[in-house]
Amino acid sequence: MIKPLGKRVVIKVAETEQTTKSGFVLPSSAKEKEQFGEIIEVGPEIVAEDNVAVGDQVFFKNYSGTEVEFDGVEYLIIEHKDLLAKIEK
Amino acid sequence: MIKPLGKRVVIKVAETEQTTKSGFVLPSSAKEKEQFGEIIEVGPEIVAEDNVAVGDQVFFKNYSGTEVEFDGVEYLIIEHKDLLAKIEK
Amino acid sequence: MIKPLGKRVVIKVAETEQTTKSGFVLPSSAKEKEQFGEIIEVGPEIVAEDNVAVGDQVFFKNYSGTEVEFDGVEYLIIEHKDLLAKIEK
Amino acid sequence: MIKPLGKRVVIKVAETEQTTKSGFVLPSSAKEKEQFGEIIEVGPEIVAEDNVAVGDQVFFKNYSGTEVEFDGVEYLIIEHKDLLAKIEK
Amino acid sequence: MIKPLGKRVVIKVAETEQTTKSGFVLPSSAKEKEQFGEIIEVGPEIVAEDNVAVGDQVFFKNYSGTEVEFDGVEYLIIEHKDLLAKIEK
Amino acid sequence: MIKPLGKRVVIKVAETEQTTKSGFVLPSSAKEKEQFGEIIEVGPEIVAEDNVAVGDQVFFKNYSGTEVEFDGVEYLIIEHKDLLAKIEK
Amino acid sequence: MIKPLGKRVVIKVAETEQTTKSGFVLPSSAKEKEQFGEIIEVGPEIVAEDNVAVGDQVFFKNYSGTEVEFDGVEYLIIEHKDLLAKIEK
Repeated sequence: MIKPLGKRVVIKVAETEQTTKSGFVLPSSAKEKEQFGEIIEVGPEIVAEDNVAVGDQVFFKNYSGTEVEFDGVEYLIIEHKDLLAKIEK
Repeated sequence: MIKPLGKRVVIKVAETEQTTKSGFVLPSSAKEKEQFGEIIEVGPEIVAEDNVAVGDQVFFKNYSGTEVEFDGVEYLIIEHKDLLAKIEK
Repeated sequence: MIKPLGKRVVIKVAETEQTTKSGFVLPSSAKEKEQFGEIIEVGPEIVAEDNVAVGDQVFFKNYSGTEVEFDGVEYLIIEHKDLLAKIEK
Repeated sequence: MIKPLGKRVVIKVAETEQTTKSGFVLPSSAKEKEQFGEIIEVGPEIVAEDNVAVGDQVFFKNYSGTEVEFDGVEYLIIEHKDLLAKIEK
Repeated sequence: MIKPLGKRVVIKVAETEQTTKSGFVLPSSAKEKEQFGEIIEVGPEIVAEDNVAVGDQVFFKNYSGTEVEFDGVEYLIIEHKDLLAKIEK
Repeated sequence: MIKPLGKRVVIKVAETEQTTKSGFVLPSSAKEKEQFGEIIEVGPEIVAEDNVAVGDQVFFKNYSGTEVEFDGVEYLIIEHKDLLAKIEK
Repeated sequence: MIKPLGKRVVIKVAETEQTTKSGFVLPSSAKEKEQFGEIIEVGPEIVAEDNVAVGDQVFFKNYSGTEVEFDGVEYLIIEHKDLLAKIEK
């Protein structure tokens, strides 16, 4: 598994036109595609006040983070400061 | 619902030529359109001294914040430091 | 009324060729027009040591601040750090 | 009178080819013209350790400060950090 | 041996299409090649909380660090802040 | 005399092809000319730990400092942080 | 001798294709030439924790430091933060 370092998280980027787990339709318009995804790992420096956890669905800044491929799957490793908001279930 | 992270707020951007709740006519001129809107959610790091709350009508810096679409509606997620002023009722 | 946020003030920008309240002739030359105006509102973080108050006539840095239109009137919302000097009556 | 704000001073810029009060010939060469002048006002945050006072003749960084015109006279409002040296009488 | 200075590490950059020690297939796609490698030395300012040690397989930011050649072998000397994540065995 | 302000010094820039006081031949090659000179005044914020004094012959960063002319003589007013090294007699 | 100021060191840059004192062949490839050399002087602000001393053979960042010529010999005056690693004998 990919373990993020510092105050970063690993995100599985959502494909557009996909209904999120909580049933909301994802941005389908020409809106920047990679802006939304699910957190699958959090780094050692993420604390409770940072308000994010594994499983959260989050919006993040366009063009932020670094894409990596691991075991044939694409992930985004991104810093907490570039996470904008999360969907409250 | 979209829950902003850190010291951000979520704004519903006002369309131009729209009278605000408090009856003021919105900037109709060629003035940058997205400069005005209503706060619909505040992040966990917003405190009383920041002087903003849900329902406030605020001016914000042009070209600041990130546009996201959620449930077919457009929102702007913006940092408190980019909020310029609010309309006092 | 527009209430500035943080350490900002709202300025009513003076038109060139206008005699200020204290009788001084305003910059009429090709000098940058928007450099002078009157403070009509101060933000919550403005303190006594900042040496500015409502009614002060101030010079400010060119191209600083954000222009907004409200109720058909143009205002400039500007940070205290961009205020250069004031006219002493 | 123009009262500078913060840690700024107001300078009356010297014309080239002018003998300074203490008899020194001013930079006449193609050296940047606006580099020298006399302090006519100091701001509230200027302290003794800053080593400048009204009446000092100072060199300042090229292209620093903001030119303003007041009562038909040109002044330069400049930050203390852009003052380089003064002439010791 | 090359001993990194400060909060840096020395990495042996992995060739693409190479199975990592823990059996994972490395990024083979057009993904930036130099994004993955093994730590072979850590600098004096690396501490336990930094969560990295000799032998760790790490992802790092593209175009970060400095390539050096020593004894005919290529190494990357990179700062801890540019290390993104590590593979957990 | 020119009295530097803050943590600056005034330098008399050495002409190339000139033997320094301590007998060393100055950079004569196409090396940037203005890189070497003698300190003739130090500012009020220069302290013992800064390791420079009037009379020291110093190398300084290319293109740093501001050239001024005073009494027909050219000087360089430069910040301590741009002084690189001195010649030890 | 050239005495570096602050947290700098003076380096004698190694020519490519040269075996270092400890017998390692220097980068001979098209690798940036000036990346390696020997420390011949350290500045007053270099402390034990900085892990460098006169005689160390170090790698440094490309295009960092300032080249000076003294007594016909070329030296590089460089800040400690631009030193990357040293060769451990």
